[in-house]
Amino acid sequence: MSGSTFGSLFRVTNFGESHGPAIGCVIDGCPPGLALSTQDIQPELDRRRPGTSRHVTQRQEPDQVEILSGVYEGLTTGTPICLLIRNVDQRSKDYGNILDTFRPGHADYTYWRKYGLRDPRGGGRSSARLTAPMVAAGAVARKWLKQELGVQFRGCMTALGEIDLAFEGWEHVGQNPFFAANVSQIQALEDYMDALRKDGDSVGAKLMVEATGMPAGLGQPLFDKLDADIAYAMMGINAVKGVEIGAGFDSVRQRGSQHGDELTPAGFASNNAGGVLGGISSGQDLRVSIAIKPTSSIRTPKASINRAGEPTTVETFGRHDPCVGIRATPIAEAMLALVVIDHVLMDRAQCADVELPIPAIAAHRPDAG
Amino acid sequence: MSGSTFGSLFRVTNFGESHGPAIGCVIDGCPPGLALSTQDIQPELDRRRPGTSRHVTQRQEPDQVEILSGVYEGLTTGTPICLLIRNVDQRSKDYGNILDTFRPGHADYTYWRKYGLRDPRGGGRSSARLTAPMVAAGAVARKWLKQELGVQFRGCMTALGEIDLAFEGWEHVGQNPFFAANVSQIQALEDYMDALRKDGDSVGAKLMVEATGMPAGLGQPLFDKLDADIAYAMMGINAVKGVEIGAGFDSVRQRGSQHGDELTPAGFASNNAGGVLGGISSGQDLRVSIAIKPTSSIRTPKASINRAGEPTTVETFGRHDPCVGIRATPIAEAMLALVVIDHVLMDRAQCADVELPIPAIAAHRPDAG
Amino acid sequence: MSGSTFGSLFRVTNFGESHGPAIGCVIDGCPPGLALSTQDIQPELDRRRPGTSRHVTQRQEPDQVEILSGVYEGLTTGTPICLLIRNVDQRSKDYGNILDTFRPGHADYTYWRKYGLRDPRGGGRSSARLTAPMVAAGAVARKWLKQELGVQFRGCMTALGEIDLAFEGWEHVGQNPFFAANVSQIQALEDYMDALRKDGDSVGAKLMVEATGMPAGLGQPLFDKLDADIAYAMMGINAVKGVEIGAGFDSVRQRGSQHGDELTPAGFASNNAGGVLGGISSGQDLRVSIAIKPTSSIRTPKASINRAGEPTTVETFGRHDPCVGIRATPIAEAMLALVVIDHVLMDRAQCADVELPIPAIAAHRPDAG
Amino acid sequence: MSGSTFGSLFRVTNFGESHGPAIGCVIDGCPPGLALSTQDIQPELDRRRPGTSRHVTQRQEPDQVEILSGVYEGLTTGTPICLLIRNVDQRSKDYGNILDTFRPGHADYTYWRKYGLRDPRGGGRSSARLTAPMVAAGAVARKWLKQELGVQFRGCMTALGEIDLAFEGWEHVGQNPFFAANVSQIQALEDYMDALRKDGDSVGAKLMVEATGMPAGLGQPLFDKLDADIAYAMMGINAVKGVEIGAGFDSVRQRGSQHGDELTPAGFASNNAGGVLGGISSGQDLRVSIAIKPTSSIRTPKASINRAGEPTTVETFGRHDPCVGIRATPIAEAMLALVVIDHVLMDRAQCADVELPIPAIAAHRPDAG
Repeated sequence: MSGSTFGSLFRVTNFGESHGPAIGCVIDGCPPGLALSTQDIQPELDRRRPGTSRHVTQRQEPDQVEILSGVYEGLTTGTPICLLIRNVDQRSKDYGNILDTFRPGHADYTYWRKYGLRDPRGGGRSSARLTAPMVAAGAVARKWLKQELGVQFRGCMTALGEIDLAFEGWEHVGQNPFFAANVSQIQALEDYMDALRKDGDSVGAKLMVEATGMPAGLGQPLFDKLDADIAYAMMGINAVKGVEIGAGFDSVRQRGSQHGDELTPAGFASNNAGGVLGGISSGQDLRVSIAIKPTSSIRTPKASINRAGEPTTVETFGRHDPCVGIRATPIAEAMLALVVIDHVLMDRAQCADVELPIPAIAAHRPDAG
Repeated sequence: MSGSTFGSLFRVTNFGESHGPAIGCVIDGCPPGLALSTQDIQPELDRRRPGTSRHVTQRQEPDQVEILSGVYEGLTTGTPICLLIRNVDQRSKDYGNILDTFRPGHADYTYWRKYGLRDPRGGGRSSARLTAPMVAAGAVARKWLKQELGVQFRGCMTALGEIDLAFEGWEHVGQNPFFAANVSQIQALEDYMDALRKDGDSVGAKLMVEATGMPAGLGQPLFDKLDADIAYAMMGINAVKGVEIGAGFDSVRQRGSQHGDELTPAGFASNNAGGVLGGISSGQDLRVSIAIKPTSSIRTPKASINRAGEPTTVETFGRHDPCVGIRATPIAEAMLALVVIDHVLMDRAQCADVELPIPAIAAHRPDAG
Repeated sequence: MSGSTFGSLFRVTNFGESHGPAIGCVIDGCPPGLALSTQDIQPELDRRRPGTSRHVTQRQEPDQVEILSGVYEGLTTGTPICLLIRNVDQRSKDYGNILDTFRPGHADYTYWRKYGLRDPRGGGRSSARLTAPMVAAGAVARKWLKQELGVQFRGCMTALGEIDLAFEGWEHVGQNPFFAANVSQIQALEDYMDALRKDGDSVGAKLMVEATGMPAGLGQPLFDKLDADIAYAMMGINAVKGVEIGAGFDSVRQRGSQHGDELTPAGFASNNAGGVLGGISSGQDLRVSIAIKPTSSIRTPKASINRAGEPTTVETFGRHDPCVGIRATPIAEAMLALVVIDHVLMDRAQCADVELPIPAIAAHRPDAG
Repeated sequence: MSGSTFGSLFRVTNFGESHGPAIGCVIDGCPPGLALSTQDIQPELDRRRPGTSRHVTQRQEPDQVEILSGVYEGLTTGTPICLLIRNVDQRSKDYGNILDTFRPGHADYTYWRKYGLRDPRGGGRSSARLTAPMVAAGAVARKWLKQELGVQFRGCMTALGEIDLAFEGWEHVGQNPFFAANVSQIQALEDYMDALRKDGDSVGAKLMVEATGMPAGLGQPLFDKLDADIAYAMMGINAVKGVEIGAGFDSVRQRGSQHGDELTPAGFASNNAGGVLGGISSGQDLRVSIAIKPTSSIRTPKASINRAGEPTTVETFGRHDPCVGIRATPIAEAMLALVVIDHVLMDRAQCADVELPIPAIAAHRPDAG
């Protein structure tokens, strides 16, 4: 509620600013006995790291994570795990020219209205850099979920601006800088981004993330529904403006006879539900789509006002992602993992422990898109 | 977290089942001194009530609200307000035939997986009937917000199945059974629904809700973002599968030069943000769209399994809404009001109280849709 | 935080006022599948009920509990259980004379300072009558804890004013109106109370409550310590001014060589800890003592001020308990049960599930007092 | 609930272990605009620091605090403040001999029962060293409360083992290593502690803490009562076994005619309430007493068992406080400040803002003890 803690039972408290000395988080509620080292976390941070291709911000941050507490002799102790990431490349001077004005579409204006002050250094607390500690926390959640339950997470870009991306196979995702499950359209994406950078403009994107191997029964009936918590987690990622579960906005035009996923002894016959019925997981794969708006820090001039309320024009120089969606896939995966682990722990607390007469129904897994 | 309480500072705890003796809620944290009687609440409940047109369920529920506590001599006391609504028309026999099977697309299956038991009476706790207490609580929030800050809420249907509805004016919303801001397409909607009912099928819908008169500065930076909380509230409404803030999924194809709402001394020049920047309200109108899936209880037969895991076929008779979206507008308005009041109280707790040198920027209000 | 919900995973939201139409609570998080009827709850309410001896208030309240939700075919469903108790004997006229003044030692004054208004009807929300729903909720917790884990609760009065009560056996507690584990001093207590009533005065009391059959490992290391949560629960009971765990204030004068309970293969050799070490249960019996102040509503005149700030004198007539401690034993037991069940559910969420090489250590159970 | 976060609106999340690389906390919800530097925090840490007299542990820790986030250009920004304290003197070898056994009266045993593992390095997470970050967070709260409302905190030791300490004046507290408000008995305390150290034993203590300048109206009616939250905070401090508010256990023997603090236009005539009536602050000084048990790590041999459940004998060498109460005064003050600031912020959220016709009643301040 005070805005820096995510989760109820697997709680992650995030701290830091984009250009302060360090960012990090405290994970409280991680089960004891999990083997954990920085090697479990670093690869996920590296996937999200800036400066890795010409299509993302050129800020150079190694994003090396330190474990300050909560692990003893290589095992989690059940007590808080503090993860620290030192900021290294905090060039603030680039932001000097925007100190007194408000970038259209940026949190500049609302932070100033809320707090009466501004930290112009890279957006301060509103920077997408603050997702790094969540990716780190998500890596811890992912390790436990995979090991205990076999739940795994993956995601891909499904559209970049006007370009819709065909789903060609999960194996392609790690082979291109866009997290596209696609090999044939990568050159088109490269060209598109190069043109955009030349224009000094930015563009939106659409991503899809999944959880596979899900247990049924996670989620609460009325308010802490699994899909509601997912929507909260996803809409909270910087620049996200829309969230869909399963068929999402396509379900507006569907008939009930078409939308409801039929059940067979061999599994669900489709996944319009996206893995959630009545707020509770069905055992189908969780499937979530998100819309990411274009970055507001662009070189193209736009009308705005200054802090005295007078009209002015703003152009933003400095190092910015022309499409924040490009690095958002590992973030969305991490947030989904944090939602799932919280519900798994909650489920254990609820003591339902039901023995059911039928085997788990297999999750249907159609192609993405 | 235990799933029946909504909100942090204006907390609403919901109880009851569709076919039990009563449903209701306890509101904790309502500011003292608000004049409140059942007359403030009943009109909102009447907007949501079943049985009011041939396009919704024919269950007859007067939904008369009783105030059991928290009001003394016509004023709220600051202590919990218990609102009780007795169930009247609990015909359960209609559900007998679905006791042992699972409706495709329904929470039947997931409740059974979670709890190991089923309350077949009208969906028990998963019934949309449980939104009635939220509409009642929302009415309390709305009265306080209007009186203290001038914040108001409104909404309309923007699509019903394949029919996209043109926005023709807010004044039409109360004049048709669909909550459409439209007068020219109403006959088409009536015909569409009549055909659907004859088919024994159901269909989805899309709604838009707004808050006007919003103060700037509501929302937290990282996790209790105003838009994240809205997404949580909306995705938690029965049958919702997608949520958009402002431009939503359209922002995927927008350029930064186009998406960012320019600021002028006279106000924002557009509202792609939907009233939220960096998770914090900008003073623009809040604008939210939701996708509602088709009802799963339909007469059309679908393949399913029974509790022994054997294949079977399900058709649902009984009284059901062929489009749950039709009655969802007052629900979405209420949930939005509950999110906003919570953030207003939180804002007061945060003591920012900033005096800014410029007057509040006027909210741009383009036509809906 | 908004003050009417107790617990995190077994959450009880309390509503109502002493002289409103009804009081009650909503229990959220009760595990599904527990057999539950009003017969499980009513006996505990009857133990706390007013009007049962000449030493307590003569208000006649049957305190009949109704279950409005959360139970289906005799079993809890895992969804919210609403318990309702109608107020019957709300004679408010007796309070008329105190409407404009503040009783020394009473919450009259602080409620007025907080809310700017007063509900003079029996203390409104500050009345000890609001403990009845907690006793009802506690009965639900107690049934589950006894059945699942064998944990049970009991308590007794250990001092009434100047009279210290010798512990003579648990079997006596139900045989006298004071909840004394004593048979030889009952006549002295009767005489003491009769004299006090004649004087128009009131007096304090001291109680002890225990949980037996406790599992080890409940409680969090730093803040949600089991003993801290117990202190919170106990200090929150009306009129409580002091809480001790185990040796309590006697531990000030103890040496470490004397205080630390030795461990033997056959069990702990003593229980100075009161069942908690480092905030976590040891498997010893929980043992808690509380101090209850004398009632502030007395016939003896005392100096005070009125709402205009002018000096005045207050005497309170009407129906009051001359020693609120007399009826507090079932309340303290219920609150202890609510703390314990919350920690049991939390413990399950934490997934420690440790298999230890030694059998559980027997709890030492010295005589109370 | 997961045990490492304190507070609701001014939230402090604590991390670290006694002998890990660092300890610290994240403060979320600190109002923006507060001038803050390490100089505001360090003096309070220095008051609690080990190694400052021969009567406390000889571990040498400078306890230098670093501010990692939440402060920009010398002012708090309203976003999370991370405070880090590096551990310096982590000599673990002294603990080797207790790795396999359980110290009577120590959390060794319960941690092992809870988590199935032990961090023997100085008690790990159960160490009183973890109070240092709370003292640091408390210093932030204290600065804001003093500046905004004039609320201040102070405390003193009132008994050490068998020696009751006369209250001789607040000015003495900083002049002796015991935090005694006393000058005449200091030599007796020195001698007492020297003898105890020679015996290899430990002893308990009693402390009193106060808040002065309190506003009326803080606290919730039923569960988040100010005194309940204080009891929770105090009982959560390491080794505390009892908590009293105002007259505390003395109120057992008081009559109502004696206990209730009379109100006069010039102020309350006494303070048996300890500043709280019905869970809500009255404007009187808050007054709290706590009992602290003797340290369990002593050289005197005691019977115990090992991890295989076999009988053994334990004596603890290494560096330990022979009376943990000696350094506990600044801790108790800090915890009280954290409770008060949380309620002040909550009060603002509740929007009561009452204008009362009488001036604030002066707080009566009798001598302590």
